[in-house]
Amino acid sequence: MTEAIGNSFFGVITDEEYQRQRAVYEPFTDAVRKLIDAGIRTGVDATKLAEAQAEIEAIIDKLRAVEKPVPSIVRLADTGRPLSYANPTVGLRNAIAPPMVVNHEGGPDYRAWAEFDLGLPYEGPPGLVHGGICALVLDQLLGETASAGLTKPHFTGTITVRYLRGTPLGRVRAEAWVDRTDGVKTYARGTLSDAEGVTVEADGIFIRPQWARE
Amino acid sequence: MTEAIGNSFFGVITDEEYQRQRAVYEPFTDAVRKLIDAGIRTGVDATKLAEAQAEIEAIIDKLRAVEKPVPSIVRLADTGRPLSYANPTVGLRNAIAPPMVVNHEGGPDYRAWAEFDLGLPYEGPPGLVHGGICALVLDQLLGETASAGLTKPHFTGTITVRYLRGTPLGRVRAEAWVDRTDGVKTYARGTLSDAEGVTVEADGIFIRPQWARE
Repeated sequence: MTEAIGNSFFGVITDEEYQRQRAVYEPFTDAVRKLIDAGIRTGVDATKLAEAQAEIEAIIDKLRAVEKPVPSIVRLADTGRPLSYANPTVGLRNAIAPPMVVNHEGGPDYRAWAEFDLGLPYEGPPGLVHGGICALVLDQLLGETASAGLTKPHFTGTITVRYLRGTPLGRVRAEAWVDRTDGVKTYARGTLSDAEGVTVEADGIFIRPQWARE
Repeated sequence: MTEAIGNSFFGVITDEEYQRQRAVYEPFTDAVRKLIDAGIRTGVDATKLAEAQAEIEAIIDKLRAVEKPVPSIVRLADTGRPLSYANPTVGLRNAIAPPMVVNHEGGPDYRAWAEFDLGLPYEGPPGLVHGGICALVLDQLLGETASAGLTKPHFTGTITVRYLRGTPLGRVRAEAWVDRTDGVKTYARGTLSDAEGVTVEADGIFIRPQWARE
């Protein structure tokens, strides 16, 4: 079952099918995530690294032997929210994603939050999260809030990110909420925090696309 | 050979050693990058995916068998610029990085630019680059410009990113330059473009840290 939104087709899946897909894809994607980390840290010599590379290439060949078009997003039947496979912040099958698991609270207010780990692959200055990674996760979370849990189409117009202090690598909490709406524009705000408090603030203006206006 | 900058130690390496490290790490990291992509696209069944996962975990064990502390950044002896291993935009050993290979032009002006590919793992809306990924790569490039090719320490104070239109997945060009400086603050600007022109604009304020002020 699919529904057309704009130029794209989105599948709709039941919660049962969602849980089945999580059980299949989460452990695999987490293994790839750990491989990214190990690739930065490993001290093996050039010969052993080349062997590992050949083994990875053999796995890629087996994975690519069966390809099927993956919809960019499918919607969960119970909430109407999207399940993303490729998104680099929340995608179920994307090892680049930390991943963020976004919680939605407060009904129509859609305050969104996520707690997750940002390790070595997200480092900018030594020991600190890359400023652009802070912007990446906040852009996603502000967007989810501005679009009422991604049930209403939107595009980011502008986002401003203020760095109050460095964000240490490790556990972080991201939060976002709608500040106000004005016609087709929604103003969202958000923060990134460590255990000591807020490290980064963000303000975003999100715009309802022309084709989705009534 | 190491030199102290702030709280961190940075190694210094010759161009010959840099080229040796590139030859070892680039092909390995590129294989992990292709594995991330294949993990999103593959249509193999749950059994074959679990087999691939077990093979990946075996590779991780071998890589982790030899660990040595990797300096976050080492400096190239000839330019004084850092070589980053873990940075998620430019890191030599980080499969999350596209990677951007940043070119520096114009001597003291340090106009910086990079052309690189953003494929499926960087997708936000269907077929388009995630807005936060645009912010990530521009934050890095503005920072490199504001810090004169990363030869002078700095931290991002604020960055504002304006989305003019969606950036299609594929080849992009990022550019950045210093707009003006005012005491410890440097104002940098930049753009992200596809073949049709600019898709995203960014303004950043970068601040010289207290310990690096004269």
